[in-house]
Amino acid sequence: MDELYLLNSIWILLGAILVIFMQGGFILLEAGSTRMKNAGHIAGKTLFTFSIASIMFWAVGYGLIFGKNPNFFVGWSDFFYSGQEIDGANYSGATFFLFQLAFAGISLTIAFGGFAERAKLSVYLVFALLFSSLVYPIVAHWIWGGGWLAEHGKQDFAGSTVVHLTGAMAAFAGSILLKPRIGKYQNDGKANDLRGHNQVYTALGVIILWFGWFGFNAGSTLSVDDGFFGFVALNTNLAAAAGAISALLISWVALGKADIPTIMNGALAGLVAITASCAFVETWAAVVIGLIAGVLVFYSVKFFEKCKIDDPIYALSVHGVAGIFGTLSTGFFATPELATVGKPGLFYGGGFTQLGVQAMGVIVCALYAFSVSFVLLYMMKKVMNGLRVTEEEELMGLDLSEHGSYGYPEAFTTSEPVRPIGQEVRPSSKHVFHE
Amino acid sequence: MDELYLLNSIWILLGAILVIFMQGGFILLEAGSTRMKNAGHIAGKTLFTFSIASIMFWAVGYGLIFGKNPNFFVGWSDFFYSGQEIDGANYSGATFFLFQLAFAGISLTIAFGGFAERAKLSVYLVFALLFSSLVYPIVAHWIWGGGWLAEHGKQDFAGSTVVHLTGAMAAFAGSILLKPRIGKYQNDGKANDLRGHNQVYTALGVIILWFGWFGFNAGSTLSVDDGFFGFVALNTNLAAAAGAISALLISWVALGKADIPTIMNGALAGLVAITASCAFVETWAAVVIGLIAGVLVFYSVKFFEKCKIDDPIYALSVHGVAGIFGTLSTGFFATPELATVGKPGLFYGGGFTQLGVQAMGVIVCALYAFSVSFVLLYMMKKVMNGLRVTEEEELMGLDLSEHGSYGYPEAFTTSEPVRPIGQEVRPSSKHVFHE
Amino acid sequence: MDELYLLNSIWILLGAILVIFMQGGFILLEAGSTRMKNAGHIAGKTLFTFSIASIMFWAVGYGLIFGKNPNFFVGWSDFFYSGQEIDGANYSGATFFLFQLAFAGISLTIAFGGFAERAKLSVYLVFALLFSSLVYPIVAHWIWGGGWLAEHGKQDFAGSTVVHLTGAMAAFAGSILLKPRIGKYQNDGKANDLRGHNQVYTALGVIILWFGWFGFNAGSTLSVDDGFFGFVALNTNLAAAAGAISALLISWVALGKADIPTIMNGALAGLVAITASCAFVETWAAVVIGLIAGVLVFYSVKFFEKCKIDDPIYALSVHGVAGIFGTLSTGFFATPELATVGKPGLFYGGGFTQLGVQAMGVIVCALYAFSVSFVLLYMMKKVMNGLRVTEEEELMGLDLSEHGSYGYPEAFTTSEPVRPIGQEVRPSSKHVFHE
Repeated sequence: MDELYLLNSIWILLGAILVIFMQGGFILLEAGSTRMKNAGHIAGKTLFTFSIASIMFWAVGYGLIFGKNPNFFVGWSDFFYSGQEIDGANYSGATFFLFQLAFAGISLTIAFGGFAERAKLSVYLVFALLFSSLVYPIVAHWIWGGGWLAEHGKQDFAGSTVVHLTGAMAAFAGSILLKPRIGKYQNDGKANDLRGHNQVYTALGVIILWFGWFGFNAGSTLSVDDGFFGFVALNTNLAAAAGAISALLISWVALGKADIPTIMNGALAGLVAITASCAFVETWAAVVIGLIAGVLVFYSVKFFEKCKIDDPIYALSVHGVAGIFGTLSTGFFATPELATVGKPGLFYGGGFTQLGVQAMGVIVCALYAFSVSFVLLYMMKKVMNGLRVTEEEELMGLDLSEHGSYGYPEAFTTSEPVRPIGQEVRPSSKHVFHE
Repeated sequence: MDELYLLNSIWILLGAILVIFMQGGFILLEAGSTRMKNAGHIAGKTLFTFSIASIMFWAVGYGLIFGKNPNFFVGWSDFFYSGQEIDGANYSGATFFLFQLAFAGISLTIAFGGFAERAKLSVYLVFALLFSSLVYPIVAHWIWGGGWLAEHGKQDFAGSTVVHLTGAMAAFAGSILLKPRIGKYQNDGKANDLRGHNQVYTALGVIILWFGWFGFNAGSTLSVDDGFFGFVALNTNLAAAAGAISALLISWVALGKADIPTIMNGALAGLVAITASCAFVETWAAVVIGLIAGVLVFYSVKFFEKCKIDDPIYALSVHGVAGIFGTLSTGFFATPELATVGKPGLFYGGGFTQLGVQAMGVIVCALYAFSVSFVLLYMMKKVMNGLRVTEEEELMGLDLSEHGSYGYPEAFTTSEPVRPIGQEVRPSSKHVFHE
Repeated sequence: MDELYLLNSIWILLGAILVIFMQGGFILLEAGSTRMKNAGHIAGKTLFTFSIASIMFWAVGYGLIFGKNPNFFVGWSDFFYSGQEIDGANYSGATFFLFQLAFAGISLTIAFGGFAERAKLSVYLVFALLFSSLVYPIVAHWIWGGGWLAEHGKQDFAGSTVVHLTGAMAAFAGSILLKPRIGKYQNDGKANDLRGHNQVYTALGVIILWFGWFGFNAGSTLSVDDGFFGFVALNTNLAAAAGAISALLISWVALGKADIPTIMNGALAGLVAITASCAFVETWAAVVIGLIAGVLVFYSVKFFEKCKIDDPIYALSVHGVAGIFGTLSTGFFATPELATVGKPGLFYGGGFTQLGVQAMGVIVCALYAFSVSFVLLYMMKKVMNGLRVTEEEELMGLDLSEHGSYGYPEAFTTSEPVRPIGQEVRPSSKHVFHE
């Protein structure tokens, strides 16, 4: 068989399994950023929502995005995908499918970041079905499947818009409808800091995501023939590092302490931001994009906290704000001819027209993902008797309420099920936002 | 050098290191599924038993399986393997060796799942030597090394029988001879639920195993030339996802709660089941196989618990029952001509004759692995003054008894070494099964 | 594009991302080997010091090592590397850059092992800048960049000297200047055992490092054309396994218990030792090298403990002593013609002359790395008002003192911030070494 076909296919499959491994990074990031009483729930739900995303992508998602006879809005064929090859592609159809499946799974996991520590288990199940059929595939078709934004020249190298922004917008809709967690805000509106319970988990989670992101970005070249994947990986690493450093410095200056969750968010924001442009910009630009993303995410987290949007895993800031910034920054920093590498950057059209198309794409996709997610969740709220566990269940923790056992059974042995942490408002206190 | 030789070798080496990384998944799965007082022991013993498996495979295992001048029972050459190439193979001998070494290591780790929380450290050492020379290599030779089952046409694409069933049968022998853990059964025979101490570990462990399984299954194509590895990986992912979903649903229906350990077992059962047939079946069949495996594992766990087989990591259900089901399901679902992919499935003979051969292979291999393991462990029990730590040591935990220090020293600061969990029978209670 | 160029580039990029993933292994190893109160700090600082190493390598490190017009001491060009290709190399320049960046990051992380649990956050930041410009690039240039040791024929296949010994020597300088942690030594000079808080972390960390080491060693072939990478990976695995086993046995004999941290150190020492010679020795020699390294590291840890060098993560023993042993053992065990593989070993000159060059290289590099690190840290100590946090801060833990929040906030809920462990000298006790 053709050597290049084999090389491309191996490369894409490696990208796919690295992106699938990122689910482990999200388990650690999300569990580590939240409280002990919800840790088992978060770990388990990530596993089964990725499972639902996998089956849904196989059944309908792939066909809606990449189906033949596409119209401007959606594709329509290849449901229950059976492994067939793709016309004109010099790589294995099955590997491309798995790579795209992995992306769909990441977007859903990002969305659920905004639901953490208070949504009912049944809400995860139902919204996983809806997001995987009515939200993600539509945006993905528009940009990657030959839909109307693709026709306008909208570019999104590895999914800054398709994967990250779409997920973040669903997280946004979820966090608005779910309202803040008990104890997040005091009566006077001041935000409490509900600290995540394990920073070793979050740091390891960030490293796993960083590792997997090489598959996410460098795998998105799809063809290895131009030898560009190494340059893409290099830009990815530089932006992540720059994001961590600028976030460290800004938190040290602003808070007087080098805040560890901020450093982690900075690295992730750098990764999200560079995702749109990693194949289009010079290395110095990757560093600058990372530095800006690290600062941006720090202030973005503060901003949403002030707005009373309770987003426990910072999905909105890390994946939304940095995703938008990354997509737009492509317009500023992209170098159509990457002279220093001695070859043209991939795909990028360039110029001000491109910037306009990028901006339009961001706005329309964000609006679609947010509004459809909001309407779906609003209807679910009506039909399912609310999206949220009861106050008693939330205080007890979702491990026990949704799954019947603690994630850490040996850490809860006293008569009191919930260990208070320093700043948490106790159950007896009044709390402001609760449905 | 020949391009295809290089591609195949890179592919197999990637498979090998992914399967070696699965040891990390087992550390988390096993430690997370058991109690705090044994966590350091479990983590450390997995590391050194894999080390023993590595050295034993180098010294004797490889030669017994793949040695030249094989007879029906065993091969005999290439001991202390020194890197030589394999006649007629278009891939590097050393990479094939490492891939096979990784498989032997997994089988041993599965076996020790049945020993958890009560076997003496010396038992792990001695049985690692025996299993790696007298149990695993024999079964592997029969099926993969040109032995008598291979001659009858027994197929086992990536080791459902060779790796999983063999390990599970040794776990079975071990759990019978070791008897249940203190506190597992009440005086009236009712089983207690000795909850694992960390579900974040187990979930991350499952993701690592899922990730590594792509190397396990897709790496087993050995040659990349047919471009089939992507299809194999896709089936692997679909079966895992389907297993998690069906296990979630069955536990919710049967227990009233979506039990997290059950979800994890479902994903793993899907992975084990598809291991036999991932290259032979259509994608819809992979989903069906995964769905059935997820349900099967739930009832299998209940069944063995009722039989008073105490199998803390569910090795018998996940690797044994799902392994048997996977091997037999190949007979039902295999499609000799995978029409939709436009190419024939790998290797598979097909038809009812094949089903008979599969069934015979399963029975004979299971019998061999179980009975030899049982006899070896029985003799060890006599010679080594029992397989099990003392009652006092078991209550204290194997971290302290076998290694002299706690795995979590800062979590044990009170005068009482063992933190009770809700349902655990306290030391003062009578317990039913103990040697 | 040339097929071999693509294969080599993919191979090197895989090596690079595996080595970057090793940072996750170090996070777990280091956090697990130290106490709870410092866990968040250690996790976060590993992330941002790798980030600093990344940016510094891009800005100056690469140019100092591999810059054009090199002299005996240092290279000088290609600062702020922009992705250009390398003259005469049949692989992508960007992938080679990223692979080397990953190595530089590992060396810095090893260095900081000696700083654990007592150095100020600002010290990590400043020394990361200095080590990444004045220490690591110089040694790397001497051996890998065409410097004077390269001209003398010094060989270091994958960085036993360049990466491990250099890092270990900086750790050595740091641990001398920082002095032992509070409570490490009793008034009579007897060492206390300040146990790490989580052996599951350390074991998983070792597996991640083991996994990443395949990229470290096998990736160092740079070209896949000779098909040698599989043999290199095989030797790597055998040495690691042998190291774990001999360390297990020696600790069981010497201490009466199979000590888990010793087993972990044995595996890592095997990996470090084989790093120098994995492409030059027969498989039996890899096993012997690993066995010796495992014993060596056990006594080395005891030795440094007696010398009152407090090296919490054993950087000096694992990366220093095993690194020196590995480099020298190349002189004893290397087989210029690896007859059994049917091809010559890579690069190795062989003979007694070579042994002399190896020894000279080790001595000079160790001296350079130690003395420059020592002088830099000594000056930092003067300028920065000490390298160490205050006594009160150290007792409280660096999570709180350097970052303002605990890594495990829910584990510290009582009025007493520091949970005592069995052997720890309490704050009220006198302690011997403290600046």
